[in-house]
Amino acid sequence: MPESLLVVGSIALDTLRTPHGEVKDELGGSATFFSVAASFLAPVRLVGVVGEDFPQDFYRMFRSRAIDTTGLTVVRGGKTFRWHGSYQGAMNEATTDDVSLNVFGDFRPVIPAPFRQSRLVFLANGSPVTQGSVLDQVEKPALVVADTMNLWIQTQRDALLALLARVDGLVLNDGEARMLTGDDNLVRAGRQILTLGPKFVVIKKGEHGALLATDARALAGEPGRDVCPLPAYPATEVRDPTGAGDSFAGGMMGYLAKTGRFDAASLVRAMAYGTVTASFAIEDFGLRRFERLTLDEINRRLFEYHDMLAF
Amino acid sequence: MPESLLVVGSIALDTLRTPHGEVKDELGGSATFFSVAASFLAPVRLVGVVGEDFPQDFYRMFRSRAIDTTGLTVVRGGKTFRWHGSYQGAMNEATTDDVSLNVFGDFRPVIPAPFRQSRLVFLANGSPVTQGSVLDQVEKPALVVADTMNLWIQTQRDALLALLARVDGLVLNDGEARMLTGDDNLVRAGRQILTLGPKFVVIKKGEHGALLATDARALAGEPGRDVCPLPAYPATEVRDPTGAGDSFAGGMMGYLAKTGRFDAASLVRAMAYGTVTASFAIEDFGLRRFERLTLDEINRRLFEYHDMLAF
Repeated sequence: MPESLLVVGSIALDTLRTPHGEVKDELGGSATFFSVAASFLAPVRLVGVVGEDFPQDFYRMFRSRAIDTTGLTVVRGGKTFRWHGSYQGAMNEATTDDVSLNVFGDFRPVIPAPFRQSRLVFLANGSPVTQGSVLDQVEKPALVVADTMNLWIQTQRDALLALLARVDGLVLNDGEARMLTGDDNLVRAGRQILTLGPKFVVIKKGEHGALLATDARALAGEPGRDVCPLPAYPATEVRDPTGAGDSFAGGMMGYLAKTGRFDAASLVRAMAYGTVTASFAIEDFGLRRFERLTLDEINRRLFEYHDMLAF
Repeated sequence: MPESLLVVGSIALDTLRTPHGEVKDELGGSATFFSVAASFLAPVRLVGVVGEDFPQDFYRMFRSRAIDTTGLTVVRGGKTFRWHGSYQGAMNEATTDDVSLNVFGDFRPVIPAPFRQSRLVFLANGSPVTQGSVLDQVEKPALVVADTMNLWIQTQRDALLALLARVDGLVLNDGEARMLTGDDNLVRAGRQILTLGPKFVVIKKGEHGALLATDARALAGEPGRDVCPLPAYPATEVRDPTGAGDSFAGGMMGYLAKTGRFDAASLVRAMAYGTVTASFAIEDFGLRRFERLTLDEINRRLFEYHDMLAF
């Protein structure tokens, strides 16, 4: 029986432009991608905020999956967070063309009572103060993983360091890992982050895959297996990279929730699930590929990916 | 009994500056790195040209290994090819500060008679016309692999396309693969290169590893295993990236020469050997790490790398 997975983060309506087309008010946001990605493997408890303009269809999509929306607050008269982004060329980097935080700007997450016993918690990208306030409300989490971004590293470094002392895992991208540690070498940067509190850190490198660094003493598992680089799945159809990182985290945490084991070997398998889940997310705009995706397809690609790396 | 491996390419004296120090007239060049890297696994036949200024110590280094220098021409009164390069920050890209082709500018490789039966041939980076002239002199090669660079893609495209029709494998970096095909997606770029002649292509991505694309019909091996991404070994001590790509190719071809098998699964294992061999090359300036490296160390790191990727 998989454990429930609590996620707190943004829910957004995205307007996107890539070399493959444009979409308007597409369902997006970090908690959204995470929830839907994780829901293939484990039940998800979603905490977020939207405005009255949030389409009913999107609620239905959440509820049609194993996503509990009890923690979804609708602000009367409010507007949902909106992000306008675009990608050029190889689509390695998003350009933010416009952003309106709207109701997300005043988001003070309140965790519903039934969610407070969640054993697995994902703090999607948000201010470390807000992320910490979520942790204050969770009773006895067994595994807490946080995401962060350059903005918080630059503007709320102390709050972020305080948060890192309270989490089991950190997920961030390569540029952020370098910024946080001042070290260009990602292996060293990962190890340095481990000294700040987390037992493991996943450094996401976009199309180049991800690097896991673990504190072997803090985690059960084979000693010495402290660094693991995994390549991205070699995707050929990339239409929209939005949400790839959160889909990766969702697949990873979904696998951990499903197995209930958090040792180093499980983390590597979880990262493989995250890699494969993210490879589907980018095949179409927003969550469209997920809407027609099955667990069977994920598992088949996972085996294919496994065989690619077997030598 | 491993087969002999013929390599034709540059031998240089490098003056290098990285954030970790400076060296002057260090032994370098594509054929040099390739030869020494491959020599851990198979005997190498080196064809190249140097000037009278080429230090005796470097000859001795070649001869102390399984490298046959019969094909090494010394031009009387000539000067050896010199390259001055530097690296900043994360050292992802070399800056050429100065280059003097010297005797390498007039290099018209002549393959010694005993080398003409070589079954494995590596055409290190050079003009495709020169690379083709080497092939004209080799009698019945079983496996020909070429390297190339942006200069030839831009200035000798037709000659390069003619060469590609004659080789079994191509090794090039990600930017060059994109330039050659006009496709930003490396998997599609790799597959497009296969339509130009090669049965396999290895796209090198530096610190991000490498991508293998194979023509399953042309190679013996598991059907469907047509693309394989391997991450770089997670190195922490990077002093000088010079020669990493040629060391990768040397480790890869050395393994193929050692086993004499060129099916898809062997190519993946060969790429793993290349990855690990290159990870040693960058730990010190020039060839210094190779000089104190043992096959036992390579194999131990290979097992470690294998275990990292096993999930």
